[in-house]
Amino acid sequence: MTTEELWKKYKEKQFIISAYELLLNTTYYDSDTIAPVKGRDYRNERMAYIGGEVFDMQTDPEYIALREELAAKEDLDETSREILKWELKDLESFRYIPKDVYVAYNELTMKANVVWKEAKNRNDYKLFEPYLLKIIEMRKDMLQYRHSDLQGYDIYLSDYEPGMTTEKYDQFFDLIREKLVPLIKKISAAPQIDTAFTNLHYPADQQRKLMYRILDYMKFDLEAGVLGETEHPFTSAMSKNDVRVTTHYYEDNILSSIFSVIHEAGHATYNYQIRDDLADTYVFDNISSGMHESQSRLMENYLGRNMAFWDNLYPEAVKLFPEQLKNVDQEAFVKAANASVCSLIRTEADELTYPLHILVRYEIEKGIFNGTVDVNNLEQIWNDKYEEYLGVRPQKASEGILQDVHWSGGSFGYFPTYALGSGYAAQFMAAMRKDIDVEVCMHNNEFQTIKDWLKEHIHQYGGLYLPQKQIEIATGEPFDPNYYVDYLTEKYSKLYGIKE
Amino acid sequence: MTTEELWKKYKEKQFIISAYELLLNTTYYDSDTIAPVKGRDYRNERMAYIGGEVFDMQTDPEYIALREELAAKEDLDETSREILKWELKDLESFRYIPKDVYVAYNELTMKANVVWKEAKNRNDYKLFEPYLLKIIEMRKDMLQYRHSDLQGYDIYLSDYEPGMTTEKYDQFFDLIREKLVPLIKKISAAPQIDTAFTNLHYPADQQRKLMYRILDYMKFDLEAGVLGETEHPFTSAMSKNDVRVTTHYYEDNILSSIFSVIHEAGHATYNYQIRDDLADTYVFDNISSGMHESQSRLMENYLGRNMAFWDNLYPEAVKLFPEQLKNVDQEAFVKAANASVCSLIRTEADELTYPLHILVRYEIEKGIFNGTVDVNNLEQIWNDKYEEYLGVRPQKASEGILQDVHWSGGSFGYFPTYALGSGYAAQFMAAMRKDIDVEVCMHNNEFQTIKDWLKEHIHQYGGLYLPQKQIEIATGEPFDPNYYVDYLTEKYSKLYGIKE
Repeated sequence: MTTEELWKKYKEKQFIISAYELLLNTTYYDSDTIAPVKGRDYRNERMAYIGGEVFDMQTDPEYIALREELAAKEDLDETSREILKWELKDLESFRYIPKDVYVAYNELTMKANVVWKEAKNRNDYKLFEPYLLKIIEMRKDMLQYRHSDLQGYDIYLSDYEPGMTTEKYDQFFDLIREKLVPLIKKISAAPQIDTAFTNLHYPADQQRKLMYRILDYMKFDLEAGVLGETEHPFTSAMSKNDVRVTTHYYEDNILSSIFSVIHEAGHATYNYQIRDDLADTYVFDNISSGMHESQSRLMENYLGRNMAFWDNLYPEAVKLFPEQLKNVDQEAFVKAANASVCSLIRTEADELTYPLHILVRYEIEKGIFNGTVDVNNLEQIWNDKYEEYLGVRPQKASEGILQDVHWSGGSFGYFPTYALGSGYAAQFMAAMRKDIDVEVCMHNNEFQTIKDWLKEHIHQYGGLYLPQKQIEIATGEPFDPNYYVDYLTEKYSKLYGIKE
Repeated sequence: MTTEELWKKYKEKQFIISAYELLLNTTYYDSDTIAPVKGRDYRNERMAYIGGEVFDMQTDPEYIALREELAAKEDLDETSREILKWELKDLESFRYIPKDVYVAYNELTMKANVVWKEAKNRNDYKLFEPYLLKIIEMRKDMLQYRHSDLQGYDIYLSDYEPGMTTEKYDQFFDLIREKLVPLIKKISAAPQIDTAFTNLHYPADQQRKLMYRILDYMKFDLEAGVLGETEHPFTSAMSKNDVRVTTHYYEDNILSSIFSVIHEAGHATYNYQIRDDLADTYVFDNISSGMHESQSRLMENYLGRNMAFWDNLYPEAVKLFPEQLKNVDQEAFVKAANASVCSLIRTEADELTYPLHILVRYEIEKGIFNGTVDVNNLEQIWNDKYEEYLGVRPQKASEGILQDVHWSGGSFGYFPTYALGSGYAAQFMAAMRKDIDVEVCMHNNEFQTIKDWLKEHIHQYGGLYLPQKQIEIATGEPFDPNYYVDYLTEKYSKLYGIKE
């Protein structure tokens, strides 16, 4: 067949798969935001069935051959070839897994997820342990079905962040350990920032109004997006013009939903600002985890926790919460939003201590795969590392090894991207600051200028490029984690009056 | 194959189709409640594709043969045979339509819907007219692909309400015309009920709280349902344990959302209360339009507009709207909720004048199909009939022939079921009153007793029975529209002090 004929067949098939995926994504979004709990089993069985249909279509040998043939065509344009390359690379992560192994693994993780919830509720790691060990065993075993140039844990690291390996992550985390652990110890000994007012009673209805003000300030297009409510906030990109963010309102915490919304809006903006000709392609939402996280963290931490972000918004917050914020000026509010405290829960961690939560998980995952960690002793290893790096020791499993959902789903290799994304973001910010005055933009209610920069240098490409290449395109240099640790060191030394 | 083998294959296929339908229904619900407008085209194209997949599965000759073979098995149980009978009957409504005709018709109605909205906005019937005429032509033409014992309009009437024909509807509407038109004229001349307070400012946030109180009072299970918001309220039954109602908040109208919610909760309760062994079958939500409407109207009009319904709820309403309702007692509130005014818009019509809105549509539809109505003069015919029956004449098309969406979708034969459902409801109420004291139940906050009666006599069966048979099961006698006109005559004569 000619390239044109192959291309036409490819686009037809892609449209069909995108139809299934849209309906699945919509049902998943629905299920996680508003669907009633009693309908869950009926829904899950059917979502699993349709998910299987998509798997069968994706791994259909004829369709794989079509894409391989197309990717090899010399007269195919560069962009299309790049897209196909990613699609085939991702396919490699599951196409050689025998169907019975795939099904067994899915059943295991589905069951493990239920047990994990139960174990977390009961603070009983032993309940979950056999499932975790079985998942570890299967994940190791499933490496045999990979046709990758990489080995072991590196294969999974690369699934989430193409181009990243243990060697590269080691360099990244070594720097973090070396520079941030001592800084955090100093800060723990310094006078603490007052955050008590952030835990007064903030009614959800009023919080919701503030979130819409924030989205409006961020020029979030509510005709192409939705703000939903869920237990664990996430972003769902249905299509370029339907990108949804979610949050959770805690009435005893005003900061939680604010920074969830800003964070998710960062993810959403990435999808929304993709170039039109890439919008209906594989790279629309298949973006590396680290790159995606870089955009959410950039909005959340580098912009949202910046004083200037609140110049226009803080008066609105005070109007909505006149009692709660009556003795709090903008500076005190922003300071509280940046307070650093060594704590046990990753998702509640501040910007500075956050990467150490990830460091703990990275070291354990790496050790699991290279055999240097005793998998029968994971809870104690977890607790020891928290004590070592953060100076706090979990007293119960729900605040320790059972806090995160990831391992119950077998997602080894995912955690490191959370810290890496923050690292990328520091470098993107440094590059952006060469071109525009971020504080002036925010003060002048010109958030779009910031978004335009991100669009031009990053968002327009979606997942077209290898993260390392994307970073060079946007910043003109390879990834350099020093931007990150320098930024954190400077910001937090100043905030807590630490002399270096 | 044995009956057992056939049954197993049938249930497998049914599961697959139910998976597609659940995802389609969820996406439809999403699209009508929260989805952002800019994602519509992307979404619609994909929903249409998956809809086509379901059509192909349903009309797959092999699957049809399977069901026909199964339905003919002598050792099949009675209930399963009945369910299959309905499934095959409904299949008859589209299985013989050639695919190209089916696609052309869908494209026409999709386009017509867009034009209808535009025409309604611009009050320009002429813009929509060519589409309506083309739809009429196609609907007439498509009758040739029906293998039905019925003829013409009767075929479509029976699609929505099995067993109903022009002859039977004529009897029903003759009685309505004869008895209600003179009564309505008398009421128009009588002193009117004060409803001004219902149009004060009622903030949506407060209305929303009231709706949850109402659902709670009605023992609506929010773990198996959702209250959503939409432009035109509807109910969506995803599964027995996931039945969703929607409403629309008008801040200058407190009655609109209240009676939408009660109405939709009536629909939802029908689905929710189906017998477990029928829950995953074809008759779960394939219930005749008239029967479904009978349950929504019963809740809305016969219960919701009853004084006793408000004994527990009105104090709650006053707490939520202390200013708006400060000089309004419960009796004045309920009176206002029952006020009858001849108006132009069907969806805003009161209980008494409502069937006359339907009468206008029924007469026009009947005339279109039997050739006694000049299709080139529909707008004037519409306006003349409104003047004749309701004494009001539309001054613009949006308040006249363009007000309803139905014809743009080719749904001829649907409207009459709205009035018929109210008629059924009167007879169900009369039967219920023989067994329980409805007012005492409502006064004592025992709405479940009413729902239990409906479950036992109607809801548990879903769509298992022909409406006429279902009515006999529940009331012990055939459908008798005199219950309906007698009820309306008595209620409204008393309310307006009319001497007969």
